[in-house]
Amino acid sequence: MEPPFGVRALTFDVFGTVVDWRSSVAREMAAFAAAKGIELDAMAFAMAWRGRYQPALSRVRNGEVPWTRLDDLHRESLLALLDEFGVGGLGEGEIDYLVRIWHRLDPWPDSVPGLVRLRRRFILATLSNGNVSLMVDLARATGLPWDAVLGAEVARAYKPQDAAYLTTAALLDLAPAQCMMVAAHNSDLRKARKLGFRTAFVSRPTEYGPEQTTDLEPQEDWDVVAPSMLGLADRLGC
Amino acid sequence: MEPPFGVRALTFDVFGTVVDWRSSVAREMAAFAAAKGIELDAMAFAMAWRGRYQPALSRVRNGEVPWTRLDDLHRESLLALLDEFGVGGLGEGEIDYLVRIWHRLDPWPDSVPGLVRLRRRFILATLSNGNVSLMVDLARATGLPWDAVLGAEVARAYKPQDAAYLTTAALLDLAPAQCMMVAAHNSDLRKARKLGFRTAFVSRPTEYGPEQTTDLEPQEDWDVVAPSMLGLADRLGC
Repeated sequence: MEPPFGVRALTFDVFGTVVDWRSSVAREMAAFAAAKGIELDAMAFAMAWRGRYQPALSRVRNGEVPWTRLDDLHRESLLALLDEFGVGGLGEGEIDYLVRIWHRLDPWPDSVPGLVRLRRRFILATLSNGNVSLMVDLARATGLPWDAVLGAEVARAYKPQDAAYLTTAALLDLAPAQCMMVAAHNSDLRKARKLGFRTAFVSRPTEYGPEQTTDLEPQEDWDVVAPSMLGLADRLGC
Repeated sequence: MEPPFGVRALTFDVFGTVVDWRSSVAREMAAFAAAKGIELDAMAFAMAWRGRYQPALSRVRNGEVPWTRLDDLHRESLLALLDEFGVGGLGEGEIDYLVRIWHRLDPWPDSVPGLVRLRRRFILATLSNGNVSLMVDLARATGLPWDAVLGAEVARAYKPQDAAYLTTAALLDLAPAQCMMVAAHNSDLRKARKLGFRTAFVSRPTEYGPEQTTDLEPQEDWDVVAPSMLGLADRLGC
């Protein structure tokens, strides 16, 4: 049977689309703070950590700093934030442990069962700004069934730079039109579509919490719109 | 429990070590020839095709030709061999079908069950000269449980060039000493060891057929020597 839209591979945004970084980071920060006897607004810390994400990527994208993998950007942001939140005196091992919270994020409840169904029919690859070892750790901990971990680090380019998308398609030996970008973020899909990818919007209206105001709805006529990975599997006949 | 040898990831040679290219290619060539009514010594063809492998890689390694992925080298070799074996008049679709025989190779019988056990304890990554899409297709067809498909294409360097090994370790965020190269070929292990990898020799004494004379035995004191992937799992406590 001809695949829907002629698509052979689904390429996934991961943070926010596949995994719930906010709850996971807040929970781990809260547990760490409690164990250390530190007072900390863990949810605010999680949001602030993610808030430093795009500015950090920008410095790499615009050439201000050389290629730096996401783990190392997370570490720099963490050190600045610990200072900002008045948390001092942590050892190297503790810092490492906290940086690796991002290797231990929980998938949204529909992600693993949805991807298992989608994988029957499509090649599944990450097209994330997360580094390879982070993606591998996430998958091993949770059962996310990637066929290939690709994206930013392999391309040495952060989304939305073209190379992140195009290198991923090229390594799969597919034309962009044979790939469908799956993301909860309109901007990611906009760039993917511009480069020739098919597009699937999976809404994650609480990625940033119950007060979220962005990406609540599809902003273009994406090829597929689904409320979850299970919904995406339904729409794609898996 | 401390991992054996401090190893976190096993990096695998694939052709010959994990999959039996010779029987698979010969069987597919024989079936194709029979269906077309062509007379062909399919086993000789398989051996000749593989015989053109190292010379083709060498031209890329020494810079005579720019980076070329293995599928395309396989295609060039195939066209030359069809001529040499007096097989003419094939269409583009048939050529594509034959090139992709290498995406449909059978694993040795112990490979999938062995890797499933090894994966419980170690990250499993390909460190093959095969391109990413070839490795993904092999894994999807057979159930090889890779955590990451890395190696030559991602590094844009063919083994035994250093970058093929070192880029793979770097993408896993591991030091070479935290990686164990698994191969049926002493030369591959020799290079890996030189670069700081741990080494496991899995013997495949019929990779080149019953008359094989090379790589029948380990030629150095590799860290582990095993008769199969199941044997390797035993040795590594999986």
